[in-house]
Amino acid sequence: MRHLDLLARLARPADTKIVLLVLDGVGDLATAAQPETALEAARTPNLDALAARASLGRIVPVAAGVTPGSGPGHLALFGYDPAAAENDIGRGVLEALGLGIPLGPDDVTARGNFATAGADGKLTDRRAGRIPTEECQRICARLNQALADFAGARVEVVPGEAHRFVLVLRGAGLSAAVDDTDPQALGVPPLPPRATAPAGETTAAIVARAVVVMERAIAAEPKANRVLLRGFSKLPHLRSMAELYRLRLGAFAGYPLYRGVASACGMEVVPCGKRIGEILETVAARWSDFDFFFLHVKQTDQAGEDGNLAAKVAAIEEVDAALPRLLALAPDVLAVTGDHSTPAPMKAHSFHPVPVLVASPVAFADRAERFDERAAIAGHLGTFPSRELLGLLLAHAGRLEKYGA
Amino acid sequence: MRHLDLLARLARPADTKIVLLVLDGVGDLATAAQPETALEAARTPNLDALAARASLGRIVPVAAGVTPGSGPGHLALFGYDPAAAENDIGRGVLEALGLGIPLGPDDVTARGNFATAGADGKLTDRRAGRIPTEECQRICARLNQALADFAGARVEVVPGEAHRFVLVLRGAGLSAAVDDTDPQALGVPPLPPRATAPAGETTAAIVARAVVVMERAIAAEPKANRVLLRGFSKLPHLRSMAELYRLRLGAFAGYPLYRGVASACGMEVVPCGKRIGEILETVAARWSDFDFFFLHVKQTDQAGEDGNLAAKVAAIEEVDAALPRLLALAPDVLAVTGDHSTPAPMKAHSFHPVPVLVASPVAFADRAERFDERAAIAGHLGTFPSRELLGLLLAHAGRLEKYGA
Repeated sequence: MRHLDLLARLARPADTKIVLLVLDGVGDLATAAQPETALEAARTPNLDALAARASLGRIVPVAAGVTPGSGPGHLALFGYDPAAAENDIGRGVLEALGLGIPLGPDDVTARGNFATAGADGKLTDRRAGRIPTEECQRICARLNQALADFAGARVEVVPGEAHRFVLVLRGAGLSAAVDDTDPQALGVPPLPPRATAPAGETTAAIVARAVVVMERAIAAEPKANRVLLRGFSKLPHLRSMAELYRLRLGAFAGYPLYRGVASACGMEVVPCGKRIGEILETVAARWSDFDFFFLHVKQTDQAGEDGNLAAKVAAIEEVDAALPRLLALAPDVLAVTGDHSTPAPMKAHSFHPVPVLVASPVAFADRAERFDERAAIAGHLGTFPSRELLGLLLAHAGRLEKYGA
Repeated sequence: MRHLDLLARLARPADTKIVLLVLDGVGDLATAAQPETALEAARTPNLDALAARASLGRIVPVAAGVTPGSGPGHLALFGYDPAAAENDIGRGVLEALGLGIPLGPDDVTARGNFATAGADGKLTDRRAGRIPTEECQRICARLNQALADFAGARVEVVPGEAHRFVLVLRGAGLSAAVDDTDPQALGVPPLPPRATAPAGETTAAIVARAVVVMERAIAAEPKANRVLLRGFSKLPHLRSMAELYRLRLGAFAGYPLYRGVASACGMEVVPCGKRIGEILETVAARWSDFDFFFLHVKQTDQAGEDGNLAAKVAAIEEVDAALPRLLALAPDVLAVTGDHSTPAPMKAHSFHPVPVLVASPVAFADRAERFDERAAIAGHLGTFPSRELLGLLLAHAGRLEKYGA
């Protein structure tokens, strides 16, 4: 039996609350040039106190050596096998869900960038100078006007942040088998949308016509005069965590992508701010409404991507300072971890295991002095696939029946 | 998705070099009678310095409790599941590849020993007094003359070292379903070649006739008057590492068996000497030709098989002394490990996990004081299946794309 099916079979309701606090990309590296990881360098009295009575360990998001994107990293934290084809969430779907766009099973979405090309059609800026969000909204409104009479499918664009938008196609017989039009390079024109399989040919032709309509409507824009599309995808049929585990799940994430994944897994997305303080305020207000709280802090990952150890340390210390407010809610199980490592020296997601801490009255007390990568190696939880964490959280919350007599 | 398929999907070219230095059988035991393992007893200042900035861990070649042969041990190091039926390399094929014999998909090979039997046909020496290699070559030449007119298949023998040779059968409809003729005991005659399945009956009959021809030709030899055959096998269809991972791979091994496995996995076998100094000389000369260098040192295993801890320590110290020459080539990733443990107290391969060290600019620095079995337990890499090492090496070399958005 697959792990997820086993857990679903054993899941039972209980009067316990689980908090999964994800510090995006929190895992870090110790190297000759950076002798301390962000967790090692941070002053974290509250996490340290928690570590003394919690179990520590490390999670491997996808597989040894594999660097996960945010989608697979979170799917694994939510108990799904991120390497299974049926759990593949495309970039377009992630972005669409994150923007709160309702998607049906037949709808096709793509992530869009506004871009700048010269008179020769060659790209000079793949992000249109990162135009302000308000500008993006204005341009998207104009595109939707231009697309109002479009034939063959209902086509809509939804503005995201800065130069980003989502393209949604609705209609019968649409396929996601369409290749990116973003050439991922400057000095060349955008690519034509090509079918990646025969089933995608009709949709590719529709997209090609839609791109013509859109680019005609923005031809006079100084910066955002072209559109680049990638990650054509449909909603995967993820089994709902609410049904699988008999939980009421709330997602408290300030950024679209994470709200998107949580929603696709059966969580209720609760609007909230982007910093831990704002997030905890919203959590406290909705404490009675859920059994499972997914809290997402983005700043650790952003700092890691910037190669800014000091900012990553500050983000961790901000969480540590807010921790007493979370503990005051008295969750039965509190897990602190990341969806992947984003080591500052690498300025990118990485494949390294991620430290995890699980506090609960039935957690083995590791008596670690710190919550960091080195302490995690020796922890009671060991090193295990991220997708097994959810079962451990349910177990620590008394939400799994005994298996067999 | 299987691990190997996932890695193949993510593999990308890069301008980085990976060295996998295999100290055959390096893993050892600490017991009451042998308080220090070979790695613990050896004076290894260079490996120790490397350990301080590298990640340590332990690999399990096949499965918990399973003692691997050299074939499975190396297949696992190269990323294949050694327990999967499709990855089974027979002894005959291993030896044939190691001798550089070109094998087609229909050819059947067996490992041969010259042996001595008395007038009563009973074996008195299963290795014919370990006759010199030149003697073996002379006898094989005579056998090939005798087999020149053989009907039913083209049959050839190729001399190996000392009393060893390889039998190759070429022709249509041949099967490897033939049992060993080596009784693995003295005082009994060689076994007749028997089919292990109906498909092998024709081939078994051909082998029986060939053995008669061969033994008639050497009947007057004082020592090598019989032949013992084992490991009838065909080339397995291993997917090429070169294609899977987009690497140029060079194998630098002084002994046939290891060259054979490497060749079957898609590596170019580079002729080289048997000791680390000679191997490194060849590696340096071919440094620009490959991305992945498999270096094989046999002496550690030989000493372990002999139960000679001092010799095993000396072999390790010889590698340590040569290490600066390898480091001077500045590989981006350097892994040091073994294909299995060959503890001196056991005088044989064993099932114990094998310490592994991975050095790279993105390796988590464990700050270990030594590279040995005890330090490896606490290392960042943890304990994992040998077949996952290759993915970690690719990851440390920046040769894997991110998985998902």
